[in-house]
Amino acid sequence: MKSDRYKRGWEKLKEIDGHAGERVIEALKDIAPDLARYIIEFPFGDVYSRGILSLKEREIATVAALAALGNAQPQLKVHIHGALNVGCTRQEVVEIMIQMAVYAGFPAALNGMFAAKEVFVERDKEGQSN
Amino acid sequence: MKSDRYKRGWEKLKEIDGHAGERVIEALKDIAPDLARYIIEFPFGDVYSRGILSLKEREIATVAALAALGNAQPQLKVHIHGALNVGCTRQEVVEIMIQMAVYAGFPAALNGMFAAKEVFVERDKEGQSN
Amino acid sequence: MKSDRYKRGWEKLKEIDGHAGERVIEALKDIAPDLARYIIEFPFGDVYSRGILSLKEREIATVAALAALGNAQPQLKVHIHGALNVGCTRQEVVEIMIQMAVYAGFPAALNGMFAAKEVFVERDKEGQSN
Amino acid sequence: MKSDRYKRGWEKLKEIDGHAGERVIEALKDIAPDLARYIIEFPFGDVYSRGILSLKEREIATVAALAALGNAQPQLKVHIHGALNVGCTRQEVVEIMIQMAVYAGFPAALNGMFAAKEVFVERDKEGQSN
Amino acid sequence: MKSDRYKRGWEKLKEIDGHAGERVIEALKDIAPDLARYIIEFPFGDVYSRGILSLKEREIATVAALAALGNAQPQLKVHIHGALNVGCTRQEVVEIMIQMAVYAGFPAALNGMFAAKEVFVERDKEGQSN
Amino acid sequence: MKSDRYKRGWEKLKEIDGHAGERVIEALKDIAPDLARYIIEFPFGDVYSRGILSLKEREIATVAALAALGNAQPQLKVHIHGALNVGCTRQEVVEIMIQMAVYAGFPAALNGMFAAKEVFVERDKEGQSN
Repeated sequence: MKSDRYKRGWEKLKEIDGHAGERVIEALKDIAPDLARYIIEFPFGDVYSRGILSLKEREIATVAALAALGNAQPQLKVHIHGALNVGCTRQEVVEIMIQMAVYAGFPAALNGMFAAKEVFVERDKEGQSN
Repeated sequence: MKSDRYKRGWEKLKEIDGHAGERVIEALKDIAPDLARYIIEFPFGDVYSRGILSLKEREIATVAALAALGNAQPQLKVHIHGALNVGCTRQEVVEIMIQMAVYAGFPAALNGMFAAKEVFVERDKEGQSN
Repeated sequence: MKSDRYKRGWEKLKEIDGHAGERVIEALKDIAPDLARYIIEFPFGDVYSRGILSLKEREIATVAALAALGNAQPQLKVHIHGALNVGCTRQEVVEIMIQMAVYAGFPAALNGMFAAKEVFVERDKEGQSN
Repeated sequence: MKSDRYKRGWEKLKEIDGHAGERVIEALKDIAPDLARYIIEFPFGDVYSRGILSLKEREIATVAALAALGNAQPQLKVHIHGALNVGCTRQEVVEIMIQMAVYAGFPAALNGMFAAKEVFVERDKEGQSN
Repeated sequence: MKSDRYKRGWEKLKEIDGHAGERVIEALKDIAPDLARYIIEFPFGDVYSRGILSLKEREIATVAALAALGNAQPQLKVHIHGALNVGCTRQEVVEIMIQMAVYAGFPAALNGMFAAKEVFVERDKEGQSN
Repeated sequence: MKSDRYKRGWEKLKEIDGHAGERVIEALKDIAPDLARYIIEFPFGDVYSRGILSLKEREIATVAALAALGNAQPQLKVHIHGALNVGCTRQEVVEIMIQMAVYAGFPAALNGMFAAKEVFVERDKEGQSN
């Protein structure tokens, strides 16, 4: 039986990350189903459901952090999708990367920008408007 | 003669970081005045003046990135002040740190939270309302 | 009412980190009680309680990771205590740091070693045998 | 003439990393043979030969550190092989990655898990039992 | 109208990074032309034009830093080209990577070395003498 | 009996890092004398003794890398001393930090600069001319 945290988290994950998030969960099923469950329960069931910050503000924080760390490009791409899904414009995503040039250096900003470019191309192919 | 970028950046730095920002610039004067000038011109004169993202959104991105990197506590504290100066509530700063537990781990979230706690104490002492 | 995850986590936290862990939770109470609760529920209630790896092996992994990252000295010290509490010898902790010289460089190994030295001094003062 | 450190290191490298380790040394031969020699002499001839920690415990530390750092996927994969070669089970490797979600964040855990998945597939193809 | 910083930066970028640098600027044109302009103006127009350190010394610093960070391989490759373009020999680049084994660990040194190997192959194909 | 690597390394360590280096070795004596020996043998006996890059160029690489990583301030300070001991001017050290603003962000540059400032004060007190 799924816990309330799980149900709430699964809805939140679909709302924010859409298919990209579901694919991550799917890819974990055979090797580490418990990690898949934790991802749904803790980040999405507990943290993203807290309110106080809007989902858009939470995704700005996440995209900034992942671009600054620079060692998690697949997750950065998932969360650029997420940011766009919850109300960021493409131009706002571009601005986050420019902001990171100041705090994490130009290579971090460039690699974040090229990740954004890939995401924008993917969304154009899928016919998404932003 | 100061460039327009410098003048615009100096006003922006005072608006965002307040005295904490001015102290950083002051501390650089004897050892690296050009780095002080670059900080005013590029991050503040160029980047923070771009619009598109609000100053509050830019500070959410910055606080998240510095908490995730975890190797720049003095700058993290300056930007927690900055976030509060441009419209974040203390509770929103706390939420950014909780969000970072997911993306950079619990130690990063804890160290960010304790930096926030120090900043809140400083602001209480100065009689600031948020 | 505390969840089962909370109760299980609180027992596990006391078993592993002892007073050092309780002090972290205490320090969060006024600023971010929910983060304190998450730390008890997720790392300790969920992860440390999983079995498969022994607590000693989990602490070897944690001490190695924190020494390699090099940006979370307070948590590194808590987990050096933790490693010693669940069965590592001091000499084994020293070996983890030497191992990190290979994978994260000599500065990471040195800073990890000096953190260990501080922990050993604290434990000598408290009259602990290892 | 090879030093004792070199001979001891070469045996240790073959014991731990197997063909994956030999391929790294081979790839360095034309560009930096001295770095290849240092790798054999220092990490393997000096450090892995120290005892006190078992080889399994050393690989737990190494896999944890590389997963947490998140910027050395080829070496992470070599050492997941290494861990399995010296006595870790696949399930134990999976647990190390789950543990890293706590200390380095979910993206680090995910990227470590997917590296493990690739290694497991490689070993299945080679008909290895663990 | 281009600023003096832009003109000076553009010449400097071509001198140091050559076609590799121009390609980065080109790739930014459609998504973030302002970031392209900032790269020309600040790193190249302001910083690389400062003197005091030679361009060779600046590239030694840059290659070392990017190899140590280990999360910006495309930029590391651009700057290995840059180092060779402003007077480093291939053997000197190899030595920078060996030096990084000490300060950032063997995985960072290895990944830096393999980036150098790729750059050397590219330059051999283009018929460049160093 | 000390190996040739040890003797060569000890001389090199004294030449480069001076008293600051000797103090690090001394501090390891009671807790991890083997790590002290490895530091003398591998970084100093093997790597710094290789030639090809001058000691000044090796210290430029090291100071840049440690400033960029930003998580090893004590070692950064030791190597700023080292850089000055083997021929860098203070102004050149300042330039390395400015260069790091581009590749690791302004916080890294600032923290590197303030480390340099502390070193310069220490050297003024000791009456050193650079």
